[in-house]
Amino acid sequence: MIGLDDKQILASWQKNVSPWIDAIQYKQIESRVQVTDQAIIETVTSLSGNNVSGNGVSGKNVLDVGCGEGWLTRELTKTGLSVTGVDAVQGLVDKAKTLGEGDFRVLEYEQFSDKTIPQQYDIVVCNFSLIGNESVEHIFKVIPSILRDDGVLIIQTLNPHTGCGESAYVDGWREGSWDGFSQGFCDPAPWYFRTVESWMQLFINNGFVLADLKEPVNYRTGKPVSLILAGKLLSLPVVA
Amino acid sequence: MIGLDDKQILASWQKNVSPWIDAIQYKQIESRVQVTDQAIIETVTSLSGNNVSGNGVSGKNVLDVGCGEGWLTRELTKTGLSVTGVDAVQGLVDKAKTLGEGDFRVLEYEQFSDKTIPQQYDIVVCNFSLIGNESVEHIFKVIPSILRDDGVLIIQTLNPHTGCGESAYVDGWREGSWDGFSQGFCDPAPWYFRTVESWMQLFINNGFVLADLKEPVNYRTGKPVSLILAGKLLSLPVVA
Repeated sequence: MIGLDDKQILASWQKNVSPWIDAIQYKQIESRVQVTDQAIIETVTSLSGNNVSGNGVSGKNVLDVGCGEGWLTRELTKTGLSVTGVDAVQGLVDKAKTLGEGDFRVLEYEQFSDKTIPQQYDIVVCNFSLIGNESVEHIFKVIPSILRDDGVLIIQTLNPHTGCGESAYVDGWREGSWDGFSQGFCDPAPWYFRTVESWMQLFINNGFVLADLKEPVNYRTGKPVSLILAGKLLSLPVVA
Repeated sequence: MIGLDDKQILASWQKNVSPWIDAIQYKQIESRVQVTDQAIIETVTSLSGNNVSGNGVSGKNVLDVGCGEGWLTRELTKTGLSVTGVDAVQGLVDKAKTLGEGDFRVLEYEQFSDKTIPQQYDIVVCNFSLIGNESVEHIFKVIPSILRDDGVLIIQTLNPHTGCGESAYVDGWREGSWDGFSQGFCDPAPWYFRTVESWMQLFINNGFVLADLKEPVNYRTGKPVSLILAGKLLSLPVVA
C-alpha cells in the first residue's frame, strides 16, 4: 500500500510505550496469555536443549530481538539461559531494566551488524517483533553472522492464514489497528504481510533450512493463532 | 471420525479408475491445470538442478509415488530426469503403460520397503497422493532408506488452511467428496486432514529438515490452493 513504510513502525511504537507496558504487565492480550507466550518459551527451551522446568543450566546464550519491556528475556533467563534483549525503542528498554534481571540494550534494526552485535549466539529469537519489510530483510541478512554454526533462529508471527482476512494471500503493506487493545493506544503501526512461503524464502535466501514449524492453536476457537518457524544454517557439508 | 480408515481410500480409487483417467486426460480439474501441475513440475526440476526447458539431462532419478495414470512421470521424463512411477491401483498403472514412455509398477503403500524398492533415488515426489493416516506415516518412515543422502522428498497436498473449512484446525479423518468432478465418480475416499505443523512433524520425525515450502496461489481467487514441502535428510554431521 502506498505511503506505508518501515519508518512508521518505529514512530508508532515510540508513542505507545506506556500502554504497551500495561498491556503486557496486566496480561491484556488474550492470545498471548492463552497461547503464544507459552508456545515461544517451549520452542526456545526445547531447541536449546533446555527444559521448561528450568532444572538444567545449559549455558547457552540467546538474543531476544525486539524484546520490548523484556518479559521473554526474563522468562528465558529463569530457565537457565543467558539472554540479552535488544529493542529499538528506548522507553521499552528503560522499563525492561527496572523490571528484573537481564541484559538489555537499545538498537534499531537498521543498525544490526556483526559490528554492533559482536557476540555470537546459540539462539536468536524474534517474538512478534518482525513487522516491517526492508528492516526484516536486513535482520535476516545479519543474523547468520551473529549465530553460531549450529545455532537456531526462531521467529513467532501472526499466522498468515489467520491474519490474511479477506485480502488476497500475497505479500504487502497493511494498515495497522489497535482493535481489542486499551484506549491508551494511538497511531497504529502499519505492518508488512508475508505469506508462509514468503517467510520461508527469507530463511532460504539467507542460508537456512527449516528445523521446526509450529502453528499454535487457540483451542477455544479451533483456529491457529500464530506461526513459529525455526531455522538452522545449512553451512553443513554433506559427508557421505 | 469413527469408521474412516486407510483401507477405504484404496477401495474407492479402484472404483474410480476410468473417470479419473478422463479427468486428467481432458483437463477437468481446474486447480491442477491452472496452478498445481506447473508448480510441482517447477519444484522438482528446480530442486533436481534440472530446468523446465528440458535442455539438460541431469541423469538424476525420481520416484513418483502415487503416479496414477502417469502424467507427472511423463512430464518429468521430458525434462531429462529418469522417472519411475508407482501406484497402488492396477488399473491406473495399466493405463500409464499405454500412454507413453515411462517405467511404471504397482505397489501398495503398506508394501513400501527397501526390499520392494531396492534402488535409491535423488528425488521422491508425492503429488496429491498422500491421503491416508497410517499409510502416509509408513511412506515417510521408508523414504529415508530409498533416498540418497543428498536426496530430496517433495510433497504437494491441499493447502491445509484452504482445505480446513469451518472445522477445527486439528488432524483427523474427514469425509470425502467428488463435488466439482464428473458424474462418473462414485464412493469418494475419506481423507486424513493434517495441519501444516503436522506435515512438518512427519518430516522432522523421520530425519528431515525443510529445504523449501511453497503455497501455489490461484491468482483468480487470490487464495492458496496447495502446499509444497521439500525435505532433505539431516544426516549431515556438523563440521566446525
